[in-house]
Amino acid sequence: MASPDRPQQPDARRTAAAAAAAAAGEGAVAAPLPAGSTSPALLPPTERFAARTAGMTASEIRALFAVASRPEVVSLAGGMPNLAALPLQSLASEVAELVDVDGMTALQYGSAQGVPQLREQICEVMREEGIEGDPNDVVVTVGSQMALDLLTRIFIDPGDVVLAEGPSYVGALGSFAAYQAQVVHVAMDEHGLVPDLLHDALESLSRRGITPKFLYTIPNFHNPAGVTLAHERRPQILDLCRRYGVMVIEDNPYGMLGFTGEVHPALRSFDPDVIYLGSFSKTFASGLRVGWALVPPLVRDRLVLAAESATLCPPSFTQMLVSRYLSHHDWRSQIKTFSENYRERRDAMLAALETYLPEGCSWTVPDGGFFVWLTVPAGVDTKAMLPRAVTARVAYASGTGFYADGFGSRQLRLSFCFPTPERITEGVRRLAAVLEAELDVVRTFGTPDRPELKRGSDNPAPDTT
Amino acid sequence: MASPDRPQQPDARRTAAAAAAAAAGEGAVAAPLPAGSTSPALLPPTERFAARTAGMTASEIRALFAVASRPEVVSLAGGMPNLAALPLQSLASEVAELVDVDGMTALQYGSAQGVPQLREQICEVMREEGIEGDPNDVVVTVGSQMALDLLTRIFIDPGDVVLAEGPSYVGALGSFAAYQAQVVHVAMDEHGLVPDLLHDALESLSRRGITPKFLYTIPNFHNPAGVTLAHERRPQILDLCRRYGVMVIEDNPYGMLGFTGEVHPALRSFDPDVIYLGSFSKTFASGLRVGWALVPPLVRDRLVLAAESATLCPPSFTQMLVSRYLSHHDWRSQIKTFSENYRERRDAMLAALETYLPEGCSWTVPDGGFFVWLTVPAGVDTKAMLPRAVTARVAYASGTGFYADGFGSRQLRLSFCFPTPERITEGVRRLAAVLEAELDVVRTFGTPDRPELKRGSDNPAPDTT
Repeated sequence: MASPDRPQQPDARRTAAAAAAAAAGEGAVAAPLPAGSTSPALLPPTERFAARTAGMTASEIRALFAVASRPEVVSLAGGMPNLAALPLQSLASEVAELVDVDGMTALQYGSAQGVPQLREQICEVMREEGIEGDPNDVVVTVGSQMALDLLTRIFIDPGDVVLAEGPSYVGALGSFAAYQAQVVHVAMDEHGLVPDLLHDALESLSRRGITPKFLYTIPNFHNPAGVTLAHERRPQILDLCRRYGVMVIEDNPYGMLGFTGEVHPALRSFDPDVIYLGSFSKTFASGLRVGWALVPPLVRDRLVLAAESATLCPPSFTQMLVSRYLSHHDWRSQIKTFSENYRERRDAMLAALETYLPEGCSWTVPDGGFFVWLTVPAGVDTKAMLPRAVTARVAYASGTGFYADGFGSRQLRLSFCFPTPERITEGVRRLAAVLEAELDVVRTFGTPDRPELKRGSDNPAPDTT
Repeated sequence: MASPDRPQQPDARRTAAAAAAAAAGEGAVAAPLPAGSTSPALLPPTERFAARTAGMTASEIRALFAVASRPEVVSLAGGMPNLAALPLQSLASEVAELVDVDGMTALQYGSAQGVPQLREQICEVMREEGIEGDPNDVVVTVGSQMALDLLTRIFIDPGDVVLAEGPSYVGALGSFAAYQAQVVHVAMDEHGLVPDLLHDALESLSRRGITPKFLYTIPNFHNPAGVTLAHERRPQILDLCRRYGVMVIEDNPYGMLGFTGEVHPALRSFDPDVIYLGSFSKTFASGLRVGWALVPPLVRDRLVLAAESATLCPPSFTQMLVSRYLSHHDWRSQIKTFSENYRERRDAMLAALETYLPEGCSWTVPDGGFFVWLTVPAGVDTKAMLPRAVTARVAYASGTGFYADGFGSRQLRLSFCFPTPERITEGVRRLAAVLEAELDVVRTFGTPDRPELKRGSDNPAPDTT
């Protein structure tokens, strides 16, 4: 079958070393080589990657996880839920029964949209926040991250504008970058996204003939800002978006983890056209990766097609486990238990911040969720400070990772979800010492005149002092 | 906070009906409306979807599942593995122990690249087909579909050319379409992809200055064609791709499900630059959605970043369950058991085809996997025939779904993986009757002159008669 001019087998059996060497330069030869000459490598040079791939960069937080996971370091960086309160033993028998009774279904392919019974239960969960959803409009995804990524896939052309709070969730910024969206941040205050600033952003974009594709917002216990959108602002923001023809994607992974018992009405409860993202990662178990999107029918059909080409279908096994958990366990009081653990940790962190932090620091006071957003005195660069903090055995997430535009050099995110209250107190104490040392340097040598610091310093960040 | 010219709450509380009505026309207003006027809907008109979304269309097979799942219909359409042989009881205790012993890890977020121990075991599995892989180069994904989708994401710019066998896997064509790739099919014969035809395709593309991004190929027990790439062709194909600077993505979900005991050396075993896709969906359980990619380091780092923005991380729970299964169960003899079940069903199908099919039909004879590819006599359109077949209580997958270019109207895929041998025989008998009826029409009224039929009829399809 082989045409005569083609070098045969011996040349085909190549070592990894030879391949690597070849890959260095000869990857993309378009024309055939003279017979017998060395074959180039199969591996393409970097420039053969898609344009969008250039936008994929490791998040600052991700780079941190390795270091921060050393036992001697108090990590206030990650967003891992605290699972200590989970009833492992009853879950063990639950999952055993799942395999015994429904094994042939749980271990088999399912529908791309997700297990029907779970979609009904998801609507029951959403009813807690005033949402009347139809199970047919729910699409189950591998964590709500997948829903966000697929919605970006079906809506974003390269260069499209997306509105997001400043700061915003790092995983959302990652997906927006992966699809070459242009992110325009709108600032928050202690009551969340500021309608007037949203109006200004929409107005100035519309003067330039730009209609953003959607507003991505986290109304409750914001990641990373820790603030919650005031109730009276919710209809105002929806109304603005309606008038400027901008969709709204509401991401609500922490909504049920409030500390005051107050229920915050979902944006989706005001308007059935809001695209709503939910997740069991914080209210049950993140390792199952079960999240969802509630979307209008017009969006649903395309979202399901996108989901099908992304994974064929989400795992039946984890979906059916969540479904059994919701049927057989008191999931509402389990969420209360989680919230109490997190409130205890939030209290420890706020007390420690009051006690230890130097003058000129300010921070948000979250009523739920996982995070406090800290603004440090002028002259301190939280990204530059991070290695010194880790050396002092405390880790945090520096602020610039939560902006698409280089802002945030004077901010950082502290998470209180995972460590014990004692560890949190110790971590903040260590952080305070590192900040004091930074401030000594600033006092001695003055504020370095670095552009990103300038931008960081007039960054309208949440401030409660 | 609200600016005076803005309508307030009452207007924001809208019914789904009002929203739908508004969505019909007023979705994308760029300038603010006069105060008090009706707000347009949040939902955008269709044209606000991304350009790539137009390429997302429901697969013919997917549309089938609903109908074909009726009990009275013998479905030879789906590709669902037969899980009857799985040791459910020991799996039940296995998964219970997983929660008991490792619950805090299994239910928690993990790394984007996948569970380290599983990546080591995956290398052990790949060694069965002659692959020497490094666990650091393995990326675990939610089924190998996700690996394929993400590789397309990082390599394909709109309009890029991808080479694939004709016919090819419908899920691959879906991902290629979702990223606006242009698929060029290369025909197979009973020994798989034909090197001379690949050479012709590469040569004619290169004369037009086009270097395809990659060749997507399923060397073993092809889906849907059922053929296996001859061993001597493997290095020839790699050599051609090297010389034209074309990457190779080897998709091998069925490789271990052979009926002859013969081991087919993976393309990856000839060249470490081949990108290899594997899956536990057919060798263990598809409902866990655990697949993987083995990639060169240059590709790995970008693939992990893409995976992170797609799902943050694959489910720890299902990965750790697969890992335990591989450690504690004799997975090799479990695969043997699966293969024997499938061989028995393959034999039933081949016998029935010989017995019942009319003159002028030809089909492939698979040595493993799930599928037989059938070519019907000129004048019969398998897509047009499908509703009549389902009425006769037999379902198949019509050929056009496996081509990106409208070919395949004279072909169809028969899967023998799921039904019992008796049902398979009955299904083929029903199909034969439907074919006879179609041929009567053709004999009476002649061959209708439909273009897709023309194209279908000079489609070089596998033929063993």
